[in-house]
Amino acid sequence: MTSIATPAPETDRRARGEAALAEITGASGQAVVDSLRGIAPELADWILDFSYGDVFSRPGLDYCTRELATVAALTAMGNAQPQLKVHIGGALNVGCKPEAIVDVILQMAVYAGFPSALNGVAAAREVFSARGIGPSDSAKG
Amino acid sequence: MTSIATPAPETDRRARGEAALAEITGASGQAVVDSLRGIAPELADWILDFSYGDVFSRPGLDYCTRELATVAALTAMGNAQPQLKVHIGGALNVGCKPEAIVDVILQMAVYAGFPSALNGVAAAREVFSARGIGPSDSAKG
Amino acid sequence: MTSIATPAPETDRRARGEAALAEITGASGQAVVDSLRGIAPELADWILDFSYGDVFSRPGLDYCTRELATVAALTAMGNAQPQLKVHIGGALNVGCKPEAIVDVILQMAVYAGFPSALNGVAAAREVFSARGIGPSDSAKG
Amino acid sequence: MTSIATPAPETDRRARGEAALAEITGASGQAVVDSLRGIAPELADWILDFSYGDVFSRPGLDYCTRELATVAALTAMGNAQPQLKVHIGGALNVGCKPEAIVDVILQMAVYAGFPSALNGVAAAREVFSARGIGPSDSAKG
Amino acid sequence: MTSIATPAPETDRRARGEAALAEITGASGQAVVDSLRGIAPELADWILDFSYGDVFSRPGLDYCTRELATVAALTAMGNAQPQLKVHIGGALNVGCKPEAIVDVILQMAVYAGFPSALNGVAAAREVFSARGIGPSDSAKG
Amino acid sequence: MTSIATPAPETDRRARGEAALAEITGASGQAVVDSLRGIAPELADWILDFSYGDVFSRPGLDYCTRELATVAALTAMGNAQPQLKVHIGGALNVGCKPEAIVDVILQMAVYAGFPSALNGVAAAREVFSARGIGPSDSAKG
Repeated sequence: MTSIATPAPETDRRARGEAALAEITGASGQAVVDSLRGIAPELADWILDFSYGDVFSRPGLDYCTRELATVAALTAMGNAQPQLKVHIGGALNVGCKPEAIVDVILQMAVYAGFPSALNGVAAAREVFSARGIGPSDSAKG
Repeated sequence: MTSIATPAPETDRRARGEAALAEITGASGQAVVDSLRGIAPELADWILDFSYGDVFSRPGLDYCTRELATVAALTAMGNAQPQLKVHIGGALNVGCKPEAIVDVILQMAVYAGFPSALNGVAAAREVFSARGIGPSDSAKG
Repeated sequence: MTSIATPAPETDRRARGEAALAEITGASGQAVVDSLRGIAPELADWILDFSYGDVFSRPGLDYCTRELATVAALTAMGNAQPQLKVHIGGALNVGCKPEAIVDVILQMAVYAGFPSALNGVAAAREVFSARGIGPSDSAKG
Repeated sequence: MTSIATPAPETDRRARGEAALAEITGASGQAVVDSLRGIAPELADWILDFSYGDVFSRPGLDYCTRELATVAALTAMGNAQPQLKVHIGGALNVGCKPEAIVDVILQMAVYAGFPSALNGVAAAREVFSARGIGPSDSAKG
Repeated sequence: MTSIATPAPETDRRARGEAALAEITGASGQAVVDSLRGIAPELADWILDFSYGDVFSRPGLDYCTRELATVAALTAMGNAQPQLKVHIGGALNVGCKPEAIVDVILQMAVYAGFPSALNGVAAAREVFSARGIGPSDSAKG
Repeated sequence: MTSIATPAPETDRRARGEAALAEITGASGQAVVDSLRGIAPELADWILDFSYGDVFSRPGLDYCTRELATVAALTAMGNAQPQLKVHIGGALNVGCKPEAIVDVILQMAVYAGFPSALNGVAAAREVFSARGIGPSDSAKG
């Protein structure tokens, strides 16, 4: 495993992480990172270097699939609404279709119950509405 | 099992579900269902047909026991306050006494911890207050 | 509130708790309490005095409704299988019908998802089987 | 919304659900359904008709993306190991690559913590091993 | 075990609990207890007698370590923000340093994921800000 | 913040992480890391570099306090028994007293409910027993 013999330099992790954060979350992720600088700067570092530089930058999965998996998990957990909204927006940013995001949220009714799905849809409605994405873009009833 | 050989027609599920939803949640459940029509109409369908038409309409348990079980679960999970309020109201609608609802919430202190019970009581206070149910109706200290 | 002005003596809490524990859980609850004496005797005290002496002994709800609420919560939480089995047995001990227990577990599919309901049914099957309760007693398909 | 005006007949839901269950979970899902027939036949019906017939059969997402979302959610929740294993196997059945499954599980370290990811990897190792999928198929360190 | 042979009288539990509640939570815990008197007076009793009189008053751990453990658990659970804020304040009241509180919250990124840590930091920022504790007191980046 | 301007080289993170892992978890943590090399080598890297090299190695808290916070969180979450056992052992390795570990677990009865505390005590009993730590070392009833 070369990752152990010759680990990537820190500077590469930071650059990869900043690029991934910008592409996925746009301004909202950077605002979260900036807000941490006063009280918990290490958490800001870890988000950039570890979450985005190490994990999200791995080549095995495209960003849309990664964001749909994140939306699924946060909807199911149901205790992280601010982050769920960031990643619903992130899914849109990386090209996921609105109806695919809603589909993943609805599927959580099966695995985590209807309240999780309902609160996930409420988050999606808020994010979609702020971007001018209407019902005809996300629902095909 | 006749339910497999001769499943109930869809129209029966919908009618049963709409009747159960109306009896249990009154206007608040219908408002939730209506709000879904724009963004996730299938979720509205599933709530009516599956949650209320299939599950809640089963004859084995009376509605008050079902609602107390729901209040217990949502209090314990602690991540679905909007739905908890709907079902505290639903418990009142189907004839549960206010003190029985509070008793079930308090019991969750044992199984899910005091924060869950405290947040459950806060939800009950809000629902009771909106209906003019006072302390003398729910507490017997 | 007289409970504050003149609290019940400790000896009453213990006696009430022991009686409730015996009635609800039979030998299995006592075995749990006994097993704690070596490593965490205070936890054994609290189960007797607080959980059963204070909470379960309150007069507002009958034991079967309390046990169904507990089964609902533990099924929904999904991280306490040993305790779920104790309380499925407890529900039987206090006179709940097997099909009512199954009904409450199935209802959790709506609120906590199908995996919770499936694992709850697996716990019920194990408890029912150990007591010689067959499908014809719990299922009415 | 035509799904309300002219709902699909029950027989279609069942046929769709059985086909989806077979394609996704192979023998393991059918075994779960069969095991429910004695104790909770309605739950078996709901899995077929609702989970697979209504939800998984929606056309918006391909099966591999749906299974990866399910693996993400069950890994994050951490309280449904039997179902996680079924859906890791399901992801393989519908053509997800082993390394994509592992990638989604690893990503949960960010959203639900390292214990969830570790227990998810343990589940994957067990499923992969039973199918003769070796490290060289899933890891590219 | 003398605690069983000669349990502490109720009046001692209450006095111990009131003293611990006052020392740890100051006015905020008392406000919670008072607000319960109308709707659920028993829950107020249990908080005083059991949570603070029995559990927190045990001599084995100092209050700061107890509060850090509580902050860790509530951050990880992620579904009890009001209680998390009370105990971040409680940790300060019993002499924990602001940076120790932040350190425990950050550590939860490893065990419960980054969203839990982020929401924990948001709670800490709010409590610190209300007390005039600035970044230079809690961060040492 | 110098951590941003001049990040620590990767080799330092790895060395710090390996030292911390060895001191805290002894052989058990290394066994977990080794077992990941075949299926998910990146997760092994992240545990060493991020969890132990970045987070646990921060100077703000002593290892015993960190391990007690971890034991509190994993007991409360209740869905990570293997990791809970590793960290109960880790708490012993870094010098926490057995009764302090039990005290933190018991305190979780208040915040996450009695089932969490009971399952935490069961984990502690198993770890203590394997190390020949008897009741007289952990209980002072």
